[in-house]
Amino acid sequence: MIASTSIHIERTTTPKAKPPQDKLGFGIYFTDHMFIMNYTADEGWHQSRIVPYQPITLDPAAKVFHYGQTVFEGLKAYKTADGRVQVFRPDANMRRMNLSNDRMSMPEIPTDLVLDAIKGLTHIDQDWIPDGEGNSLYIRPFIIATEALLGVQPSQAYTFMIIMSPVGAYYPEGINPVKIFVESHYVRAMIGGVGEAKTAGNYAAGLKAQDAAKEQGYTQVLWLDGAEHKYIEEVGSMNVFFKIDGTVYTPSLNGSILDGITRNSVIQLLRHWQVPVVERQLSIEEIYEAGKNGKLEEAFGTGTAAVISPVGELNWLGVKLVINGGATGGLSEKLYNNLTGIQYGKLEDEFNWMVEVK
Amino acid sequence: MIASTSIHIERTTTPKAKPPQDKLGFGIYFTDHMFIMNYTADEGWHQSRIVPYQPITLDPAAKVFHYGQTVFEGLKAYKTADGRVQVFRPDANMRRMNLSNDRMSMPEIPTDLVLDAIKGLTHIDQDWIPDGEGNSLYIRPFIIATEALLGVQPSQAYTFMIIMSPVGAYYPEGINPVKIFVESHYVRAMIGGVGEAKTAGNYAAGLKAQDAAKEQGYTQVLWLDGAEHKYIEEVGSMNVFFKIDGTVYTPSLNGSILDGITRNSVIQLLRHWQVPVVERQLSIEEIYEAGKNGKLEEAFGTGTAAVISPVGELNWLGVKLVINGGATGGLSEKLYNNLTGIQYGKLEDEFNWMVEVK
Repeated sequence: MIASTSIHIERTTTPKAKPPQDKLGFGIYFTDHMFIMNYTADEGWHQSRIVPYQPITLDPAAKVFHYGQTVFEGLKAYKTADGRVQVFRPDANMRRMNLSNDRMSMPEIPTDLVLDAIKGLTHIDQDWIPDGEGNSLYIRPFIIATEALLGVQPSQAYTFMIIMSPVGAYYPEGINPVKIFVESHYVRAMIGGVGEAKTAGNYAAGLKAQDAAKEQGYTQVLWLDGAEHKYIEEVGSMNVFFKIDGTVYTPSLNGSILDGITRNSVIQLLRHWQVPVVERQLSIEEIYEAGKNGKLEEAFGTGTAAVISPVGELNWLGVKLVINGGATGGLSEKLYNNLTGIQYGKLEDEFNWMVEVK
Repeated sequence: MIASTSIHIERTTTPKAKPPQDKLGFGIYFTDHMFIMNYTADEGWHQSRIVPYQPITLDPAAKVFHYGQTVFEGLKAYKTADGRVQVFRPDANMRRMNLSNDRMSMPEIPTDLVLDAIKGLTHIDQDWIPDGEGNSLYIRPFIIATEALLGVQPSQAYTFMIIMSPVGAYYPEGINPVKIFVESHYVRAMIGGVGEAKTAGNYAAGLKAQDAAKEQGYTQVLWLDGAEHKYIEEVGSMNVFFKIDGTVYTPSLNGSILDGITRNSVIQLLRHWQVPVVERQLSIEEIYEAGKNGKLEEAFGTGTAAVISPVGELNWLGVKLVINGGATGGLSEKLYNNLTGIQYGKLEDEFNWMVEVK
């Protein structure tokens, strides 16, 4: 049951000091307001409101703590040079959120109301959108199961919230390739599991491998499939692309891979530019083979935080593969410049991706 | 870093009314007190205290809501006919909790302190342990990540809590076989994943399959392995055993199966009784083959809530397999009677499983 109501607004009387522009980082500081609404099986979604950013109070038996029913999204608002505020593809996030809700046995959200909430909240806290190249406002909608009951069944009560954080440039010194460890022991997700849902448990499951990779000097892991440890899935919490002999390849959406919105945007841009792009099952072996034959031209991750993250080196079972001499490839850079160009309003938004907040 | 301190106690001044014995259910009512302690990277575990049961307050950016770092345990306290209070194998739960903590990149807990906390809390709320055949006090220790930071890294702050719930008999009308749907589409866990950790995400991941099975008239699902959908893993949130031609089989602990404490106790009892018991990879095909040949004598799940849950029927890809005429098998009943006999102090505790609370 979806109940749609108007959004009540309570403004803060004690606005916080803004953080210094050069200390933003990611998800450290939060804006003055947040959006919240509640769900019960009887009433559907109700009591939608924008209120001062504040702690939430839950029963210790709330299901989110015990059985992990939770879904989230991540998107960004940007300030253009001429002072407009625009959000990148929020409709796509809302569609994906409802797919995640379905997989996690959680209730559908009213996407129009939530889009209004994103716009309303961004508008109220627009002074929090940092100026400066590469800075933006990260928007985090999330839903948690709140029913205080220890039976293992779907919760009958939920809280939906949106919090926002001013975030710094991902590449303060310009776009820069990373070194990636190909993970052959730990597994992030599998077909039949919840890998395509944006749910908390997928991220907790990846931490141990991520820490082990960092200890060995790698920024992130490249995840292989859970059944055979042969096929490429994601890189860290990003989708991944490889340019081989002029064609761009990315793993097809098989159910264990997140349907990334930056991934989708990259595919649309490549098709628009008439660069051949293929979505299919992709083995790590063929990537190494292409590398050996000199046909692996570029590799990059895609995600909301970094937009495009070039991969300069892989390490698979101790064998290192340097890609494009460890430098950022031309296509990676073009994609980064185009996507961020559209996001910051410097380039024409030919795909109608940006939603202006007024 | 593990900091061990003494436990501060603040008693409630407004004790709640006890729920009616015939309405207990599972995890619906909670006792008057709870245990809580905090962790920070600097201080380790600190501020351990027993306080009145109360809501907790968290920042909306707390990592438990976004990245699912959480671990829990479940165990029970029983009241014996002569009025003693005893807990079943709490040391085993604490060992497993630290294995889960390690897998989820969470800090080790000081097991001695937590055992003291379990005993102390059970003692303070011992009036909440319900009388009556099959009733008990369910104890739920759990840890959640509390740092308010959206970066995908292990949290630097955690809260450990213990809450307790008086629970009713699992079989108010006597031990009763259930019908189980063999799940061939959805997957609970896989090798290299977090299946052997008792973490929230595993339970959320299973809800959709569980609901689908219920709609078709089945109590629970039997999970197969994630790679081939061939090998038996767990049944619902229990371990599973099959008696074939006089020998008892259970899936070996392969990394994706929870190392159940009831499972371990059943294996110890069977060995003690000189019933052959084999832990190995077990295909669903061979179970059906044994059923066809008249050699499948019994099947049962094991877990803290039900202790022993006989399986009367399986449905695998539309083919039904009735086990032991749909009735509870002799060995299942003997195991149930012995385990509950030890738990309620009616039988001698030859394995030193019970910890008395004084």
